[in-house]
Amino acid sequence: MKIVDQLREGDKRAAAKLISMIEDDDPGATAALAEIFPHTGKAHIVGLTGPPGVGKSSLINRLVREYRERSKKVGVVAVDPTSPFTGGAVLGDRIRMADTGSDPGVFIRSMATRGHSGGLALATFDAVKVLDAYGMDIVFVETVGAGQSEVDIASRAHTTVVVQMPQSGDSVQALKAGILEIGDIYVVNKMDLGGGDTMASNLDFMLEERQGWRPPVVQTAALDGRGTKELADALTKHYRFLKRGPLWRGREADRARKELFESMRHLLAETFSDDTAGIGFEETVGAIVARKTDPRTAARKLLKGLKLPR
Amino acid sequence: MKIVDQLREGDKRAAAKLISMIEDDDPGATAALAEIFPHTGKAHIVGLTGPPGVGKSSLINRLVREYRERSKKVGVVAVDPTSPFTGGAVLGDRIRMADTGSDPGVFIRSMATRGHSGGLALATFDAVKVLDAYGMDIVFVETVGAGQSEVDIASRAHTTVVVQMPQSGDSVQALKAGILEIGDIYVVNKMDLGGGDTMASNLDFMLEERQGWRPPVVQTAALDGRGTKELADALTKHYRFLKRGPLWRGREADRARKELFESMRHLLAETFSDDTAGIGFEETVGAIVARKTDPRTAARKLLKGLKLPR
Repeated sequence: MKIVDQLREGDKRAAAKLISMIEDDDPGATAALAEIFPHTGKAHIVGLTGPPGVGKSSLINRLVREYRERSKKVGVVAVDPTSPFTGGAVLGDRIRMADTGSDPGVFIRSMATRGHSGGLALATFDAVKVLDAYGMDIVFVETVGAGQSEVDIASRAHTTVVVQMPQSGDSVQALKAGILEIGDIYVVNKMDLGGGDTMASNLDFMLEERQGWRPPVVQTAALDGRGTKELADALTKHYRFLKRGPLWRGREADRARKELFESMRHLLAETFSDDTAGIGFEETVGAIVARKTDPRTAARKLLKGLKLPR
Repeated sequence: MKIVDQLREGDKRAAAKLISMIEDDDPGATAALAEIFPHTGKAHIVGLTGPPGVGKSSLINRLVREYRERSKKVGVVAVDPTSPFTGGAVLGDRIRMADTGSDPGVFIRSMATRGHSGGLALATFDAVKVLDAYGMDIVFVETVGAGQSEVDIASRAHTTVVVQMPQSGDSVQALKAGILEIGDIYVVNKMDLGGGDTMASNLDFMLEERQGWRPPVVQTAALDGRGTKELADALTKHYRFLKRGPLWRGREADRARKELFESMRHLLAETFSDDTAGIGFEETVGAIVARKTDPRTAARKLLKGLKLPR
């Protein structure tokens, strides 16, 4: 496809257009993604998560500049609906974005949270693939810490960064359940607020080595750029640890398995949403509601009679 | 099946055994669930969610007694690994459970968080079905507010109760993102701690009417039982609102659709986990990792060649 050639030649508008096609469920997107796929797997994919207002976007903004100084190409995909990248300023704190217009080595994009049938996680990681094939060295996925998408994204990135900020009171209690398990790197941002040292050492105390990696706690202040270099170094260190270690193959397979199941689900949803094909999906739903059949028996029957479109 | 007959005759041990079979992925469970299904749909299913330590179990304990006084049969399925129902005491605060041994009108069960291939949400709602068919009037699903399972469970219950407790500082900021969207009823528990009035009125201020229902805020203190009756009344009110309103049919269909897709996913996972059948699932995973095929193309191929076992 022409758009794929343009993307591979470094045409930034081709990247933007392809991601829009993904968001719009454009049929051409599927073909393009298949063509792109062999060119992916080169970028370091970093998931960055944390509650709203913690300064994730400012932090990424600093990281973008840092990576450009290191002559690395960097992409950002924001899934957080409150992210300044999407236009919504948090706490009135508008940040000045790294110049993204003219520099082909930077691409920042926020994903619409509605509209694609495959789910946000699928669309997001399709966008990441576009940036990967475009030639980015590192791609950040920014997500707000809220439920399913957060967990999905953590399980798909190579490196998950959990961002927190200093808190009054007992910071241990305030940590969301499960947060200590998902991060490869922890960041205490807004160190300028004070109280960050305590939080950082509390965090450090609670974190344990998992599979040979002990998550470091990096202290940053996106406001003045403090800690940005240290965070970038920690990211590189974790990526090298993964690539050179025994975990890489297993994680790649896990990711592939997950994506395979998600694609199947997407394909099934697509198939069954077209009820004119006489598949009787909505009829089956009605039979379940009326307790005439149970979901398992119905699922088996639907899969047995499955005829994929096209 | 004999076990289903026993369950329908009010044999509590049959209920316990069936839920264990579900947890253990026992092949007999599928058949039993199909047989049970026509007898379900009578219980009011209530999801109860909130952070650890907020007093969900004590609150449910109070509700169990309240419903027994109202001559209603009540079931509890706890998914929270930190729940006292599962044996783990929160903050050293062991609670005295409602007497569940001899009373056939009460059944309390905690679900193991590992071991069943269909995922916790599927197993949990299969357990709910068992209690529904057993004849319970109301079934509570207790879940800790942590990610995917919480969202899943909220989307499957008739009524979702979000439990919070008074907090120091700005209680608005401390609310987890998305929490204002999922609840049908909000509870400020531990009113005896003080500061609960402010929290309740803040919450009340933020909540909006959705589809004809404005979520009420109920103030409780599980310690002395304050507010238990009001909460039970609010639950009844919401159930009646749903059943008599225009939303019921649509919600039932949504639930059926969701369960149908989950069952399909489960069936696919089951099929593909048996690689001796020559389906080549792991081979496909390897091809994706090697970038020889992309997940969508592979998903289509696998679904086209699908042969369900048995």
